[in-house]
Amino acid sequence: MAPDSTSEVDVLIIGAGPAGMMTALWMSRLGIKTRIVDKRTDKVFSGQADGFQARTLEILDSFGIGERVWKESNHMIEVSFWNPDSNGAIKRYQRAPNNIGGLSRFTESVLHQGRMEAFFLDAIAASYPHPADPSGSPLKVERMVLPTSLDVDEAAAEDEDAYPVTVTLRHLTEEEATPTQKLSNLSDGLFRSNLADDDVGSMLAQSKGRVDVREETVRAKYVVGCDGAHSWTRKALGPKYEMEGEMTDFVWGVMDIVPITDFPDVRTRCMIHSASNGSLMIIPRENKLVRLYIQLTEVSAGGGRVDRSKITHEMIFKAAQKIISPYKLDYHYCDWWTAYQIGQRVGNHFTKCDRVFLAGDAVHTHSPKAGQGMNVSMSDAYNLGWKIGLVAKKIMPRKILSTYELERKQIANELIEFDHKFSRLFSGRPQKDILDETGVSMDDFSKAFNMSHMFTSGLGVNYSPSALVSKPPEKALLLESDKEVQNEGTPAAQSKLSAATNCKPGMRFPSYQVMEQCDARPWTLHHKMPSDGRFRLWVFGGDISQAAARERVNALGARLEKGILARAPRIELGAAANPFAGTARFRLDRPPSVVDVMLVHTAPRHEVELLRDLHEVYHPFDAKLGWDYDKVFADGESYNEGHGRAYEGYGVDAEKGALVVVRPDGYVGLVTELGEENWGEVETWFEGVLRMA
Amino acid sequence: MAPDSTSEVDVLIIGAGPAGMMTALWMSRLGIKTRIVDKRTDKVFSGQADGFQARTLEILDSFGIGERVWKESNHMIEVSFWNPDSNGAIKRYQRAPNNIGGLSRFTESVLHQGRMEAFFLDAIAASYPHPADPSGSPLKVERMVLPTSLDVDEAAAEDEDAYPVTVTLRHLTEEEATPTQKLSNLSDGLFRSNLADDDVGSMLAQSKGRVDVREETVRAKYVVGCDGAHSWTRKALGPKYEMEGEMTDFVWGVMDIVPITDFPDVRTRCMIHSASNGSLMIIPRENKLVRLYIQLTEVSAGGGRVDRSKITHEMIFKAAQKIISPYKLDYHYCDWWTAYQIGQRVGNHFTKCDRVFLAGDAVHTHSPKAGQGMNVSMSDAYNLGWKIGLVAKKIMPRKILSTYELERKQIANELIEFDHKFSRLFSGRPQKDILDETGVSMDDFSKAFNMSHMFTSGLGVNYSPSALVSKPPEKALLLESDKEVQNEGTPAAQSKLSAATNCKPGMRFPSYQVMEQCDARPWTLHHKMPSDGRFRLWVFGGDISQAAARERVNALGARLEKGILARAPRIELGAAANPFAGTARFRLDRPPSVVDVMLVHTAPRHEVELLRDLHEVYHPFDAKLGWDYDKVFADGESYNEGHGRAYEGYGVDAEKGALVVVRPDGYVGLVTELGEENWGEVETWFEGVLRMA
Repeated sequence: MAPDSTSEVDVLIIGAGPAGMMTALWMSRLGIKTRIVDKRTDKVFSGQADGFQARTLEILDSFGIGERVWKESNHMIEVSFWNPDSNGAIKRYQRAPNNIGGLSRFTESVLHQGRMEAFFLDAIAASYPHPADPSGSPLKVERMVLPTSLDVDEAAAEDEDAYPVTVTLRHLTEEEATPTQKLSNLSDGLFRSNLADDDVGSMLAQSKGRVDVREETVRAKYVVGCDGAHSWTRKALGPKYEMEGEMTDFVWGVMDIVPITDFPDVRTRCMIHSASNGSLMIIPRENKLVRLYIQLTEVSAGGGRVDRSKITHEMIFKAAQKIISPYKLDYHYCDWWTAYQIGQRVGNHFTKCDRVFLAGDAVHTHSPKAGQGMNVSMSDAYNLGWKIGLVAKKIMPRKILSTYELERKQIANELIEFDHKFSRLFSGRPQKDILDETGVSMDDFSKAFNMSHMFTSGLGVNYSPSALVSKPPEKALLLESDKEVQNEGTPAAQSKLSAATNCKPGMRFPSYQVMEQCDARPWTLHHKMPSDGRFRLWVFGGDISQAAARERVNALGARLEKGILARAPRIELGAAANPFAGTARFRLDRPPSVVDVMLVHTAPRHEVELLRDLHEVYHPFDAKLGWDYDKVFADGESYNEGHGRAYEGYGVDAEKGALVVVRPDGYVGLVTELGEENWGEVETWFEGVLRMA
Repeated sequence: MAPDSTSEVDVLIIGAGPAGMMTALWMSRLGIKTRIVDKRTDKVFSGQADGFQARTLEILDSFGIGERVWKESNHMIEVSFWNPDSNGAIKRYQRAPNNIGGLSRFTESVLHQGRMEAFFLDAIAASYPHPADPSGSPLKVERMVLPTSLDVDEAAAEDEDAYPVTVTLRHLTEEEATPTQKLSNLSDGLFRSNLADDDVGSMLAQSKGRVDVREETVRAKYVVGCDGAHSWTRKALGPKYEMEGEMTDFVWGVMDIVPITDFPDVRTRCMIHSASNGSLMIIPRENKLVRLYIQLTEVSAGGGRVDRSKITHEMIFKAAQKIISPYKLDYHYCDWWTAYQIGQRVGNHFTKCDRVFLAGDAVHTHSPKAGQGMNVSMSDAYNLGWKIGLVAKKIMPRKILSTYELERKQIANELIEFDHKFSRLFSGRPQKDILDETGVSMDDFSKAFNMSHMFTSGLGVNYSPSALVSKPPEKALLLESDKEVQNEGTPAAQSKLSAATNCKPGMRFPSYQVMEQCDARPWTLHHKMPSDGRFRLWVFGGDISQAAARERVNALGARLEKGILARAPRIELGAAANPFAGTARFRLDRPPSVVDVMLVHTAPRHEVELLRDLHEVYHPFDAKLGWDYDKVFADGESYNEGHGRAYEGYGVDAEKGALVVVRPDGYVGLVTELGEENWGEVETWFEGVLRMA
């Protein structure tokens, strides 16, 4: 069967789950010619992942869809621990907050994955029109399309204009692509479970020998495999691409039901250890739904694979009833169910030649109970997407792509380590007394759980030093693996952490409230950092109503104008970041610099006149659209929403000021002092990251 | 030409502007068989109204779309006053807040009217499926449809099962319906201005004699005319239906532009009085747009109508440049422009037989500068919609409909009075010195403006006593006009204002943060009061961890169960308020009562067990969906969002407690004390409003 056609594309995404959709969303915002294919006919209707962590909500918010999840989801504020009492009956033992306060505007929330996919499609559509995208039409998911071969021309990998990846795509017929799972079809809950076999083989077998099957050849600059735990892409890269780790004997069931129960905490997140019937986690969901994670003590993998046929929704629910006894538990409505065997595995390689990348479940699998899966998958893609996009646009050099594996493999390893520990504590039998050495101490369990929020929220992520993350010299020396990225003759920039003690290189830039200089509107700074591919240079200028401070920021402005802003590439913005993107007559005379300079001062707002007092880099002029009023902010008392105390929040001394470089994904790249002697450090940092003129 | 067909509908809405869409939205939420027709081919693309007041945003939020406006709009936080200095040049004289703090979660915001119409359509679609609507398909706007005759059978007006209003509808051809206005078509900015003639006559003339025109007859229970200042519906009701009031000689131009200017406050709301060139108001909008209201001193109506042909966008813009001089003002992009003559007029009747109603511009016109038009129009419809809906569903008696004119004519009169005063102060020439008696004192102007926020925000609305609003006896006696509504043998219930000093009968129930009992989630109470047609009885039960307080709320529960809840009608809820509306298998065994009982206590949340401690009216049981966990709230310190201090906010003493009845539109109907001696008062109130069994 010969391919029907051959075409070229900048980026080909395989799989339209959370990682694939996040990659596609980045590409749409950057105006990159992209295709995304998925073997299924439809999006997910029920079940699957449901947990949204605080950092994930911040990321989604940077694309304008965080608030939709926030509004529709259930927010999990509190957690209850239930353990056996001296008679072996379960009893509420502790209540604790389910989040760390003050770190983020968001808290852990739960919502059906299918809603998320709809929000992604809306966000992708909102990216268009995009001046950089010649096609002009929004990126769409191509369903019922399965890759059948993948080849990388390694010799051409470093050629910027090459399309070194060749993929054959097969367009499936409706019967080949239709999954057996249907909405609330209780008879096949194990579809997509890790107890199920990969179904690609059987899909292909169905069409063997058929003559009406259509194939095509796609030549791509980059391919991203977001095709889940059974990743076809990973397998296509060859036997060297392996998942490393282990499976346990623990088997768990999952049910999404509307519970009918006298158990008092069914709308609270609960961790229940029964004396001898196993453990149960309760995750209260939107629309009266509750997800139950139910340990199946009567099923054991016994070192091998579980017999799927023994697992039914009736037996899973009976296990839940036993654990929660003496409380009664029943249901009339079940939305979805499945079962899985706990294991923790990480891919040994995340990329081939920095041309084919793996993201999400394709490179890490673990138990779902900590609500990490969808989040870490989306975060992989969030880390990768802008790097591929800016390299494809020739704004960044190719060497930056090596930071993907550096940064995300570290997170995958941390996730596996966390999950390994947490799963065993939760699946273990509770200690009967302090002499019971094989049981799990309930004190240890609740302490471990309560300590885990910094990790599970995603706010604890701290990337290693690289061209993109400048840490102070002593810290940078700790990591050898990174030297490769900082090579090629570029001296590495170095951060001075004391300048902004709460802006930590490698961690996400936090968000505090400031007031817009031009109109007194309060904003939390994350809302001024949409995911549009731009780097932000935050100038903490201090009290610019004083001449010395004002002259300092204006001298910096003059230096930036002739230096970084004159030399850095420019970037065209689509409709999501530029309301005039669709109006050819009013297209900006020049697209903006990929470096966005923003100023936060501490002067009384009424003592500053934007146009009179500040250098033009803080209010750039466009001949068609006039001055830009959206780059200067005051840290002061707002009319009705209090004082954001942003300098305090960011850890900046108003006298000294600070400069903070933030990457397009919101992570801090460089922190330094405001004085002239530090400006060269900022230039060095950008020279290591951008293709400067 | 004989009508092609005859059909019946519960509600026919004429006009799909803000008032018509708000009426349609209510009908969709209540599942009422409704049609909405509009003579135009398309929705508004640019220009028109743009101001959203705080109360309007609360109303939109009760339908789930307030946040969309809030997110996309520009928030006007501050206002600048510019007046002539001693040399006659304009100078910034004062800056002031543009809102009153602490009254609402929202502040005055501006966004293009066309976006609003899109949000309405989404909100209407979200109402379906609706168990009460036999059609099953979402209400859609029927465009290019013009009414040509309207007849009310007055003899059948009080027959509940009659369709006493007969309307002929003409389906227009594309050419008849196409307006001459097009996006950014600068040549015809006066389309829809009050300087333009009504175009219905010319539309009909075009089709005269044509044989391909289709007409139909619709028999309706209720007709709502939302067809603007030239209201066809009003005219069809006969010569007795008149607009009363006057036009002034003041003529103003309006332009929506992206300004290119050195005027420093162009992103702030500005009130500029020039020495002798007239006045200018600056309204900064979304997407870099700015709306300018420009006084045209060279055009005067001179007691009659203005010559339209003299008004062009060039002459309007020149007037703006003169006023703002010596600052420079230019633009490259103009989105829309128009001009209007200031006048204030109110309709003398808002209804015929409580079968045909007029709402919005059809019964009040005034100058647009205070951003009131769209808001008061939507508020008319918000007041009217649920009344028609609940009467059509036989939940309320027909006499309640007379409260529409009672309540909204009062607001229209207040609006006209405000606008009359404000327009003259703003259009007047500034006083040269204190001896200049014909000039306007700039001190008086800024004081009047700053005092006006309570009115303009919409939060000051205070409806007169009626069956729906029980004021204490001494206040009720002030208004004679209302007796009619309280007749028919029902003793009027009386409020005891001291029980909840910040819940004022006739005013909107405020919103304070509480915590959900079942899961500790903080909510602002407005979010627990969606516009779904239900009345809320808020029980402020005090510290129910104490036996006496707990027994009091439980005794009330028992009384409610046998009394109001047993006797009040039930109401079916559509998808917007009931996630299981579309799932026939899981339809509620009985729809909920139209009276929703909600409890806010002050006990430490962990000392209350919902199912154990409280009467079932506070957690109703459904055989398919289990207990309802969403009716009990604690006024206490939340984990991460502080203490809402709701009792303090509502003005309730925790020892004494309080009962507050809130209407489906969020206005307080009755306030009384919690003690048993007051329960009869609540029953009396509902007997006056609902058709009790």
